[in-house]
Amino acid sequence: MARTRDRRTFLRDVGITGGAGALFATMGALGLAPTARAEEYRPPRGGDLSTTGRRAAKVVVIGGGIAGLTTAYELGKAGYDCTVLEARARTGGRNFTVRAGDRTTDLYGHTQTARFADGQYLNAGPARIPQWMVTLDYCRELGVPIEVFTNVNADAYLYNESAGMTAPVRHRTAKADVYGYVSELLAKATDQGALDEQLTSTDRERLVEFLKDWGELGDRLTYDGGERRGYATVPAAAGTPGVPLGNVPSASEVFASGVGRYFSFEFGFDQAMLMFQPVGGMDRIPLALTRAVGAHRVRTGAVVSRITDTGRGVTVTYTQAGRTKAVDADYAVAALPPNILAKVPHNLGSGVQSALEAITPSSAAKIGLEYRSRWWELDHRIYGGITETDQDVVHIWHPSYGFGGERGVLVGYYNYGANADAYARLRPEERERRAVAAGVKIYGEKYRSELVSSFSHHWRQTPHLEAAWHSTPGGPDDVRYKPLNEPTGRVWFAGDWLSYTDAWQHGAFTSARRAVTSLHARVLAS
Amino acid sequence: MARTRDRRTFLRDVGITGGAGALFATMGALGLAPTARAEEYRPPRGGDLSTTGRRAAKVVVIGGGIAGLTTAYELGKAGYDCTVLEARARTGGRNFTVRAGDRTTDLYGHTQTARFADGQYLNAGPARIPQWMVTLDYCRELGVPIEVFTNVNADAYLYNESAGMTAPVRHRTAKADVYGYVSELLAKATDQGALDEQLTSTDRERLVEFLKDWGELGDRLTYDGGERRGYATVPAAAGTPGVPLGNVPSASEVFASGVGRYFSFEFGFDQAMLMFQPVGGMDRIPLALTRAVGAHRVRTGAVVSRITDTGRGVTVTYTQAGRTKAVDADYAVAALPPNILAKVPHNLGSGVQSALEAITPSSAAKIGLEYRSRWWELDHRIYGGITETDQDVVHIWHPSYGFGGERGVLVGYYNYGANADAYARLRPEERERRAVAAGVKIYGEKYRSELVSSFSHHWRQTPHLEAAWHSTPGGPDDVRYKPLNEPTGRVWFAGDWLSYTDAWQHGAFTSARRAVTSLHARVLAS
Repeated sequence: MARTRDRRTFLRDVGITGGAGALFATMGALGLAPTARAEEYRPPRGGDLSTTGRRAAKVVVIGGGIAGLTTAYELGKAGYDCTVLEARARTGGRNFTVRAGDRTTDLYGHTQTARFADGQYLNAGPARIPQWMVTLDYCRELGVPIEVFTNVNADAYLYNESAGMTAPVRHRTAKADVYGYVSELLAKATDQGALDEQLTSTDRERLVEFLKDWGELGDRLTYDGGERRGYATVPAAAGTPGVPLGNVPSASEVFASGVGRYFSFEFGFDQAMLMFQPVGGMDRIPLALTRAVGAHRVRTGAVVSRITDTGRGVTVTYTQAGRTKAVDADYAVAALPPNILAKVPHNLGSGVQSALEAITPSSAAKIGLEYRSRWWELDHRIYGGITETDQDVVHIWHPSYGFGGERGVLVGYYNYGANADAYARLRPEERERRAVAAGVKIYGEKYRSELVSSFSHHWRQTPHLEAAWHSTPGGPDDVRYKPLNEPTGRVWFAGDWLSYTDAWQHGAFTSARRAVTSLHARVLAS
Repeated sequence: MARTRDRRTFLRDVGITGGAGALFATMGALGLAPTARAEEYRPPRGGDLSTTGRRAAKVVVIGGGIAGLTTAYELGKAGYDCTVLEARARTGGRNFTVRAGDRTTDLYGHTQTARFADGQYLNAGPARIPQWMVTLDYCRELGVPIEVFTNVNADAYLYNESAGMTAPVRHRTAKADVYGYVSELLAKATDQGALDEQLTSTDRERLVEFLKDWGELGDRLTYDGGERRGYATVPAAAGTPGVPLGNVPSASEVFASGVGRYFSFEFGFDQAMLMFQPVGGMDRIPLALTRAVGAHRVRTGAVVSRITDTGRGVTVTYTQAGRTKAVDADYAVAALPPNILAKVPHNLGSGVQSALEAITPSSAAKIGLEYRSRWWELDHRIYGGITETDQDVVHIWHPSYGFGGERGVLVGYYNYGANADAYARLRPEERERRAVAAGVKIYGEKYRSELVSSFSHHWRQTPHLEAAWHSTPGGPDDVRYKPLNEPTGRVWFAGDWLSYTDAWQHGAFTSARRAVTSLHARVLAS
């Protein structure tokens, strides 16, 4: 989900790409530093304050999402006295796992109560973790078990109705065809001398040798299908060699189908398999963080109404259960979404306010469809993974847990922007009906007939958050955000929206670490 | 592992490929039958014998591997009185999960006792299950929970020492470079008119549009690296945009490195992700089958010494704990490896004997290396997956379970043929030393210093099995194997070696089903 444009613009502007190359010049041509690391981080430690004779400063953390909880957790390691104010009834922010009994009311007034069976859940917010993100380090540190998130599956489907497809095609079939023809065309071009200027004869031999294997080309360097496409009847015992899928489309048909557009997803630095998820739901992370911070330090249902830097401290006023209250602290960390924070009165200056207003919220949504059987496993032999479509549901996720069990929750849509907003305007039962109609085109009638219940969640319409993620023009280090990236008086800011991995918990974790490091340094220097 | 040559030869010979195409002619150009199915199978049922007034025939099953256990399990559904004779101390055959305390002695006399910590294991035999195989149906039917087997990981390594690589490269980096240059070369060739005869102008536009996205090409249709390659320092909070891996190699360097040879593995019909494994070890399957058959029906340590078809029944003589015993039954199913069966005296005819002798055994081996820490996760950020090498260890597997835990078992070699036999001749501690030396080249010193214990297993040198899998010249339906594919008197044959998926449990399951169906039909017709 993270947008890479800002990051790359930054790199080009400051010339870091070239500099990095020099770092690796002594390694093999294809070598790499064995460990791609996050920036170095040293958490504050118990002795930092006590051995220097400092008292434990009091910190108010506004927002109990990942950034806020992490701030309190990390500061707590050195003994800071933290109080977390969270507007919603639960911590975790956009890290929200929906289970039976969970009840929501969106900004349109649509109320839903989840009716999933025991053990079934929907990760309405973040749902996947790449290996390189610090999120996995927190899972380890907090004792949260993880398992594979099935981000890509050769047996899941692709469906482009607008290209004339009347039935879905499996990822594996589409990939065999696209790669087969790419291979054939490049082998032919090479053979005909089209690359003689770019490549030596040795290069060309190696290239064609690669293409024959990679594209499953026949002796005449042509693509004629093959078992990678899949079988209509699978190979089994003697007497059953298997019946391969027939009707290999032409190169022209393959490129016209547009299936190739879905392949680059799996190469993404933040999306390539293997991906992971906590066992039992993504909210195992905020639950563990909240436990580590101490539930007594977290006030839920606390809606912040004013932030005042007094010069000698920070006073945060909030309402809870209809009553106005206040917290006085030495410092504050504002870890709530910028679009919400921008609506809170404060005396932090116009630079802060205009920076917050420059960052704009984005829409995204999911619907969980619970089925009484795992017909996608039984009938379609699809165990996990994502079906990609050109429908307004966009992505359909097969569950990454409970394989071979009785029930399961599909994500019937994971969509963004106008698609998400269009569904948001519908009543929940209409969202379900529309999502199911799209799924039936791809999977058939069981997509409707086996359905038990559904629960949909739209982030732009979620009170106290009102965004799935944010757009930060120019990137988080643009000069206009300087008042947010440096402490403003006694107030720090943290959140994935102040990172190069917005929409990922990694951004929230590392942004919180940055605020914690800066705040702790200030305290130690004071 | 399954060889596809025989299957494809068969298809070409009988022209099935063309026929299958016709079946799909009415579907969309890219459509497919929604469900690739195994052949239809109807298990014998309880009423089949009783409602037709037949007594429950007695069947002796020789071999307690997957084929033998499945035979007894399926026949048991209709009330057959089955006895399973298994030469080894445990059922499962080549499905062997090594845990603490497991002790083996190979044909060279090397004895080992596994010293893995609780919860740690090595699947010495089958370890992965594709979604389409009936193995998953048996997991479901028998209540064996499954999880993802991490067959491919963008963050695992490739290492070709012979191509001059002095450090490993991650799958993701190699793939970005290979696909980037393939894309650039094909885009240029297209641009220069080399494909004008094969493709229309619309085709060419679509192709180039695909290539730009798929190969991450820049505006001038050149490949200049990009974030798919990975980062030296990963993107994080504001101030940390990330430092991309530098030193993008030239096309010539990339093709000379030979890394592209590893990519087609992940397209294989039997290897493409997602793949699965039983939670807790592959032997959960034979354990569940044995329980379902009834432990009282299974005699372990029973080495068959003669098979006699008496015309009115079958007598199988065996030795157990030094004593000679016999089982008299109405029918027999021989479900032991052909190379072992060929050494057992019988009166089933020379056709059976020469068929058995035409099938030859193959070598394969694994070593499990238990480490006191999961340094590959902590230092290399590799959670699961396979590192591919040109070393004699060939494949190195990261464990697919216990992520984020304290310890873990790597597969330090999974190799075949001459490599496996060379390691087999070494004493177990020498095998460990040699495997570790190869790993150190790729992962550094922790590959040695964190090691706790190891356990190696070589199938060709395993008593009563003496093969990892088999070569069946001409394929299982070749006329010379007719005496094995049809019942010979009162004896049937079953095993993965009589299937188109040899070396896979799916072959054993479906071959057993075939024998069961045939035997049951005979009984019902008699």
